[in-house]
Amino acid sequence: MNALGKHLLLELKDCDKEVLNDIGFLKSALLAAASECGATVLGESFHQFSPQGISGVVVIAESHLFIHTWPEYGYVAADIFTCGNSVQPGKAAQTLIRKLGAKSHSVVEIQRGILDT
Amino acid sequence: MNALGKHLLLELKDCDKEVLNDIGFLKSALLAAASECGATVLGESFHQFSPQGISGVVVIAESHLFIHTWPEYGYVAADIFTCGNSVQPGKAAQTLIRKLGAKSHSVVEIQRGILDT
Repeated sequence: MNALGKHLLLELKDCDKEVLNDIGFLKSALLAAASECGATVLGESFHQFSPQGISGVVVIAESHLFIHTWPEYGYVAADIFTCGNSVQPGKAAQTLIRKLGAKSHSVVEIQRGILDT
Repeated sequence: MNALGKHLLLELKDCDKEVLNDIGFLKSALLAAASECGATVLGESFHQFSPQGISGVVVIAESHLFIHTWPEYGYVAADIFTCGNSVQPGKAAQTLIRKLGAKSHSVVEIQRGILDT
C-alpha cells in the first residue's frame, strides 16, 4: 500500500512543565527533531500565548512538524508529517519525546494520500 | 470525554488540479477557511515546490490549519487543529472541500489531549 505521506500524531504527557513554556527551548527542540530525521527546514513560526502555552511549526521540504503545548497539564500535542523516503520521522518523534521529558506518550501513524492509481 | 483539542484530517481527492499549484489561491482559501470557522489568524507560511506542489500553514490562536498539495494527482492532505469551543472546525473543512473542488473526500476527527484529570 503506497501512501504519499506519513503522519505521526504524538500525545506527550507528564512532560517537563518548565520547558513547555520556554519558546527558545521548544524552537530548538523542534529544529533538532527536524534535523535528526534528515529533513530540510524551510521556515518556522512560533507563538507564545498568555498566560501560558506555545504553538510552533517548522515547515520542511518534506512537509511539517508541529507542537502545541499546555504547560498547566504537562501535555504536548505534536505532529510529524513527512513525504518521501529520505527522512525518518520516527527519529524526530524520539527526539521530541526525549527533549520534552515525556514520562508517558503514544504515537499513532497515519498514512496520508493512499491513491487508487 | 473531554479533550483539549479537536483535530480534523482531510483527504481531498479529484480536486481542481489548476488551483493546487496556485499559491495565491491556496493562501486565500486557507485564510477563508480560518475565517469561516471563527478563528483568529496569527501567522502564515506558504512554500511552492518545484516542479509542482505547495505546502501552507495558517497559525491561529486556536491552533492551526495545514495543507499539502499534489497537483499531479489532484490530491490534498489538509489538517484543521482547533482548541476551545469558540471555533467550528467543521465549517473550515467544508470551505476547503468546496474551494478546492474535491469530488471525493474523507474527514477523520481525532480528539487530542484526553487527560486523566
